[in-house]
Parts: sequence; structure tokens; C-alpha cells
Amino acid sequence: MRTYLECIPCFLRQSLDGAKLVSTDRGLQEKVLREVLERASKMDLSDNPPAMAQYIHRLIRQHVNNDDPYRQIKQKYNQWALELYPYLKERINVSDEPLGVALRLALAGNIIDFGANGGLTADQAQVTIEQALSVPLPGGALEHFTRATGQAQRILYIGDNAGEIVFDRLLLEELPREKITFAVRGGPVINDVTREDAQMTGITEIVEVIDTGSDAPGVILESSSETFKRCFEQSEIIISKGQGNFESLNEVPKRAIFLLKAKCPVIADHLQCRIGDWILQIENQLYIQEVNAG
Amino acid sequence: MRTYLECIPCFLRQSLDGAKLVSTDRGLQEKVLREVLERASKMDLSDNPPAMAQYIHRLIRQHVNNDDPYRQIKQKYNQWALELYPYLKERINVSDEPLGVALRLALAGNIIDFGANGGLTADQAQVTIEQALSVPLPGGALEHFTRATGQAQRILYIGDNAGEIVFDRLLLEELPREKITFAVRGGPVINDVTREDAQMTGITEIVEVIDTGSDAPGVILESSSETFKRCFEQSEIIISKGQGNFESLNEVPKRAIFLLKAKCPVIADHLQCRIGDWILQIENQLYIQEVNAG
Repeated sequence: MRTYLECIPCFLRQSLDGAKLVSTDRGLQEKVLREVLERASKMDLSDNPPAMAQYIHRLIRQHVNNDDPYRQIKQKYNQWALELYPYLKERINVSDEPLGVALRLALAGNIIDFGANGGLTADQAQVTIEQALSVPLPGGALEHFTRATGQAQRILYIGDNAGEIVFDRLLLEELPREKITFAVRGGPVINDVTREDAQMTGITEIVEVIDTGSDAPGVILESSSETFKRCFEQSEIIISKGQGNFESLNEVPKRAIFLLKAKCPVIADHLQCRIGDWILQIENQLYIQEVNAG
Repeated sequence: MRTYLECIPCFLRQSLDGAKLVSTDRGLQEKVLREVLERASKMDLSDNPPAMAQYIHRLIRQHVNNDDPYRQIKQKYNQWALELYPYLKERINVSDEPLGVALRLALAGNIIDFGANGGLTADQAQVTIEQALSVPLPGGALEHFTRATGQAQRILYIGDNAGEIVFDRLLLEELPREKITFAVRGGPVINDVTREDAQMTGITEIVEVIDTGSDAPGVILESSSETFKRCFEQSEIIISKGQGNFESLNEVPKRAIFLLKAKCPVIADHLQCRIGDWILQIENQLYIQEVNAG
């Protein structure tokens, strides 16, 4: 997906919010903002939004001289989700439709994202989880998901955020694990998952884990590692979590399942849905689950 | 008031919204946005926010080649408010406290501002008017306002937006008009009032009207006309409507009454109030009327 003009004010807001989250130094915040303004004035709008986010967060890390300023936040959210894990696992186990429940939870997990929702509270997360457990999937979506993943011999599951990764684990456990490779980011960026998160949440124990070789909060194939590109090519289908992966992969000619919550007006407009709706785009077929604000 | 870092993403949003409101040409919108990004990367944060807004809206007018792209919108809102005028006038006339009601309506009129609230509907405006008619002013505010305006021999009333100007007229009619000069902008900028609006709404018939000599959506004294500066100096007190005037005048050493609705997080933080609250700052004393969202 290209960058829309409407993304630009939002990049600036994200730059400032990001800088504020990791430093109280107003001079530093100002420097970050000015550099992003300068860069944005010349940016190529045919780049996808995660390319700009990659630039912004590299800049912030460089200015605060900390290669992973979100580490503690990521650990906290992983921990929070791990504590929920037994409860959610039990809900899946007692269900008549375990894969459907796991899929809904994987979607619900996508709300745990500081990029679009800095002020998320545990209460809001809880509401979303209960919604996930009660709201049905759009008609035909589960069957399509089952068919698409059942036929594939190799599946690449591309993770998104810390915390959310525990919800991904629940879904991975309902799928044929031996066919699946799970991809994390090649380096820290915002609260996106890296190998450290995959280890902390036990993903490395259940499936093969690779990384993209890049610190983009999405998948920019041109700058990904050869290992990742090979795995991407050799997988018959990818499961892509979250908006950043969608924005960077939705135009790549590849069988794909995109699972995300629509988090901004640009994506909602692009998908013709409302902000907050749950999106399953399976092999180019769009399933939208309208969700009332909790 | 200086420009806060938090104003900058908002400038970008305003630039894009402004360009979109007056042109559907995406190329033009992009040009405006890029020029504002470039300018903002070098801006002096000690300038007040209306200085940047002045730059942005000059740029938009120049690109669309239209010296007053908001003219029709201004006329529409003036017309809308003029139709309400007899009803509001009657409410003042039957009140035990006509000046208090007029003052509350003048505050309510400040919601009619496309800068901060592009999607304002007539229904929302109506709710605010009814609130103004039912919610009391903060304790002591009316007495302080009455005392401050009663003592002054010359008063400069600085207008803000089209539509709102009709509400200003209601307040002007409750004050000693012979002592008052009403100031409009020196040239079109957003939906701010110019001489044309003062004429359309009958202000020119009831008080002397001057203009600032500048197209800033606020009062930047350095770049105002000599006539305006003289009137400003010679007035014992100014009545300043709206956030743009507040942002550009709140640090000028001058007896002043600021009437505004707090419309953004920066001003709410600055005034230690909530967005939407009604603010009366009378001779450096702050009166805050909390308002529940309508």
C-alpha cells in the first residue's frame, strides 16, 4: 500500500508520541520532530507507510541512544498476555469450534499495539477479548481459513506485536505446527516482536522461528534478508498479522491471509470498513466483522 | 503563547484539511503539505501558533488561486446565525440578567470554527446554544466582566469567526456601544471575520469597525497596521474572542478579557482545563466553566 497524504500528519504525531514515550527531553523530542518534518517533505509517497515508521523509530533510537527503548513495555505486555494464556487456552479447549475461537482471539490480540493506541488499558483489552469470545466470525471466513491453511504444505506466519504474540501462539497451536514458520522483526522497532519475544512466549518451542532481517515495522521485501525472502517464496501461503504487515504486503502477488484490526481512517477508507472493525482478507476475499466500540 | 511541539502534527493536519476543503486536486494538496513540512522543519517555536496558520492559509490561497476560498462557508454560517438572531435576542430580552445571557451566548458562538472542528453540524451548534442558555457562568465572572468593561472608557473587541460574529453582536448590544471598536482581520484567512462579515451581520451599523491590517488568524501586533496598533494601545481593555486571539495576545501586557472555548489538548493543558470547557480570563483571573460533551 502506498502512503496517503493523510498518513503524514499521523507520522508526525507518531514521531512526537514515540519520542515522548522514551524521553522527557523536550530538546530531543524537537530534534526528532524536525528531522521527520524534513524527511517527510521529500518522501516518496509510493513507499509504504512502514518504511517511514522504520525511519522514524531508527531516528528515535539513535537520539535516545537506546537500541530497544520499548523492551520493558514489550516484556510487560507479554507477561500480561502469558498470565491470560491458561484462561484463553481453556476457552479454546472447551469450545466446539477450537480453531474458530483461536482465530478470533488472534484477531483480538491485534489491539495490543502502542503505535495506534498509546493509551490502551487492561480493561479495554479485556473487553476486546470478551468480544472475541462472543462475536462470530463473518460467514464463510472460518471455512475459507481452514481450507487455505489445510491445503498449504508450508505456511509463513508473520507476527506483529508483543503481547499479541501470545494470542498468535494460541492460533499456532490449533494449526499443523510442523508446516509453519513464524517470522519476527530482524531488530527492535516500537513494540513489534523480535526473537526475544518469541522466546519469552514459548513460540520458539512450538514452531520454527526466523526473522525478517530488517527493523521495519512491517515486511519490506527488498530490504529483508535472503533467508527470509527464501522462506517467503517457498511458503505457499502467508498469514500476516496486523496493519503494518498488511500495509507492506497487501500488493505483493502471494497467497495470503491478512488478519488485522482496522486502526486508522486511511486503512478504514482503503478497506471500506469502519475504524475498529476486524478484517480477515483471505486469498483476496475480504471478510469484515463490524465491532461496536467496547 | 509559543508554539508547542504538539501543535506541529496539528498544523500538518490543518494544512491537509484546509487544502482538501478548497480543492479536490490531490497534487495540489500534496504540494501544500510538502511546503508546510519544509517550513515547519525550520520554524521558530517562539512564534505563536497563528503565525504558522497564517503561513499555511496564505499558501493554500496561493495554490488554489482564490483569495477567499471560505467566502461561501462564511456567508452560510453568518446567514445561519442571523436566522437564529431574533430567537436569541428574545431570550436575552426576557432574561433577568441580559448581560449574563449575552456573555454566555458570545462564548457559545465560539464553537462555530472550522479550524478546530471541521465537522460541526447545526445540531451540535444548537446543543451548545441551549447549554449556554442553561449553564451558569462561573461564580464571580459576570461581576468581574461588568466591572472591567464598566470602568473602561475605550474597549477594543477583537472578533474571531464568521457565524460567531452574530453572537458577538448580541453581546455588543448589551455593552455601551459608543465606547467600543470592533476589530476584524485585515484579509481573508480561514473562516475568520473580515469587514465583509461585519457588514453582512450589521456590526458596522452598531459600532466602529477597524481591521488588524493582517491576514493572521489572530493578532500579531508586529505585523498589524498602525491604525490597529494605535487603537489597541489607546483602548483601556480588550475583549478577545477565541483561541487564535488568545494564543497571539495572552502574553501581551494589556488589560484583557479572553473569551474562548478550549479546543485542543495544548490549550487545555496550558489552561489546566478540559477540551470543550468555556474559558473566561478576565484581567489575568481565570474562570473555567466545565461543559459536558453535548
